Amino acid sequence: MHWPDRRLLDLFGIEHPLIQAPMAGPNTPALAIEVAKAGGFGSLAAAMLTPEQLRAELQQVRQQTDRPINVNFFCHTPPVADAAREAAWCERLATYYAEFGLSPADADKGPTRAPYSAAMGEILLEYRPKVASFHFGLPDEALLAPLRAAGILIVSSATTVAEARWLEARGVAAVVAQGAEAGGHRGMFLTDDVGAQPGTMALVPQMVDAVKVPVIAAGGIADGRGIAAALALGAAGAQIGTAYLLTPEAKTSAIHRAALAATDDGSTCLTNVFTGRPARGILNRFMREVGPLSPLAPQFPLAAGATTPLRTAAEARGSGDFTSLWSGQAGRLARAMPAGELTRLLVEETAQARARLG
Amino acid sequence: MHWPDRRLLDLFGIEHPLIQAPMAGPNTPALAIEVAKAGGFGSLAAAMLTPEQLRAELQQVRQQTDRPINVNFFCHTPPVADAAREAAWCERLATYYAEFGLSPADADKGPTRAPYSAAMGEILLEYRPKVASFHFGLPDEALLAPLRAAGILIVSSATTVAEARWLEARGVAAVVAQGAEAGGHRGMFLTDDVGAQPGTMALVPQMVDAVKVPVIAAGGIADGRGIAAALALGAAGAQIGTAYLLTPEAKTSAIHRAALAATDDGSTCLTNVFTGRPARGILNRFMREVGPLSPLAPQFPLAAGATTPLRTAAEARGSGDFTSLWSGQAGRLARAMPAGELTRLLVEETAQARARLG
Repeated sequence: MHWPDRRLLDLFGIEHPLIQAPMAGPNTPALAIEVAKAGGFGSLAAAMLTPEQLRAELQQVRQQTDRPINVNFFCHTPPVADAAREAAWCERLATYYAEFGLSPADADKGPTRAPYSAAMGEILLEYRPKVASFHFGLPDEALLAPLRAAGILIVSSATTVAEARWLEARGVAAVVAQGAEAGGHRGMFLTDDVGAQPGTMALVPQMVDAVKVPVIAAGGIADGRGIAAALALGAAGAQIGTAYLLTPEAKTSAIHRAALAATDDGSTCLTNVFTGRPARGILNRFMREVGPLSPLAPQFPLAAGATTPLRTAAEARGSGDFTSLWSGQAGRLARAMPAGELTRLLVEETAQARARLG
Repeated sequence: MHWPDRRLLDLFGIEHPLIQAPMAGPNTPALAIEVAKAGGFGSLAAAMLTPEQLRAELQQVRQQTDRPINVNFFCHTPPVADAAREAAWCERLATYYAEFGLSPADADKGPTRAPYSAAMGEILLEYRPKVASFHFGLPDEALLAPLRAAGILIVSSATTVAEARWLEARGVAAVVAQGAEAGGHRGMFLTDDVGAQPGTMALVPQMVDAVKVPVIAAGGIADGRGIAAALALGAAGAQIGTAYLLTPEAKTSAIHRAALAATDDGSTCLTNVFTGRPARGILNRFMREVGPLSPLAPQFPLAAGATTPLRTAAEARGSGDFTSLWSGQAGRLARAMPAGELTRLLVEETAQARARLG
């Protein structure tokens, strides 16, 4: 396969400019391994892992492939506890707690998603993944310097041109242009204006014009047509998340899989009710009744403390009413097939779409 | 120029699958004429015209070109007057009226945008444009039948796959896939859920999979990269609006031009404060303070009655604070050049983008 833009291939040491998006929760080492073996860029999602869990995942990857890999972290500012705000949130959820026979004491305590830390850095220095990527900006330079010194490339997501410029000025090797269609958490870090977030079609060419580093298009891309479109817009490659959620290698729950299979182009919206930060998921009862964007949600990720028991209780009844059903707007295009096979199919479809354009 | 998909060329009788988006307000016959002469599809925007004004515009077009043309209409349900709601809206705007020394009696009475009517139909039968296109669904079949009988093709906009299916079932010749990036009014008519509107990258391939008629991609497309991307997604062509607002043929106000020249990818949002229906424009004071989405705005287009005097008064002071500065999310990519030259440049850029992909 000849690719018109070799920048990411040379930079990351991969065959195809297809990045499997890190997806905290459903991500697994097996997913990253199969994508890597098929020539794409496999990613681990460390945001909800302890350092020891990340070590185990990297160990599993290294046992099965020596292909380059991406490890992704959140790098949000740790939340400041705000007892009044968290109490108001619990109060808002009280009727649901009653519905499921839960008590306020059942709420999880403490953050469920830890920002990147020196402890994680030590593991990266041990395993030397090709790329350490970040969501919500970048950690302090003091945390990045050891990675840079070890030759680990730094990548992060930008939801606006201004964010891409900010990242480029801080030495990232590439920028993920996260269009508004993307599933999961918005990577936004210089703005909190959800309504102004540009879609992929508008964002990518403007970002390509503004920065010199390669731009990776993300958001609404789930098949070869979208990948070819991303390349036409000037992106050096595409990052694909939701399309991998139906692979057997992803540990997507049965409830999440069923919701994805029933989704269409208008099923998702941005919500902050699960974690405190805006993220795109399939609209369900909890989002509809409490959000989808609620001013009451505590600071990320503290909102999750009170919502997780509801999720667990509802799922035990077979319901996804309180589950964060993350999905981009092209979830409908996801296909249930092994991740390696899907990666090869995406490459083949991209070639077909390019040939149709020629 | 060889185009990979000839469906729109054959259907509309045009050279290039580029549709100049109808833009009620800045649209002019000269804009449509120059686009048509360059081989694109020129459009007239009739939503804010009287039948006599439309006749004059069509007359002007016919004097200068025999190329095919598109005439676009709104087809909203006429609003039901609601004195209490309109009074509450005036009350909400009272401080602004005071600021500009206006009195409630200065508010415009009656709708500023009339839906498609039999009177308009008579003019269409007289001038026989190739296409009559609609926004907000379709008029009653009784109004469409005479157009169909005269061989005039019917086209409309869909913001979701469900809307595209609805339109196809009612015999449209093509569907405009209006992605969330698009400037101006959302064509949405089966949903009012602004937050669930899909972006162009996600919407187009899902719509292409769902309907047999050609899909025209719109939203966030302002240069040849976007047009090539639209084709890669499976669209038969692209509709481009904001990119034409800086042409000398458009009667875009100086205030609007200046705002567009200063825009970036995060400058716009959806607002209903100007007309009562959600539309994308550059965020300004009125949108920020009263909206951007206000539950108080009267039914479309009645909200405009009370806002128009504010616009006029502010513009007289050189301010765009109360002007509907419609723009898509790729307004930054618009270039100030004659419309024919821009059309030819878009064609050339598309060829370049396709060649880069090959």
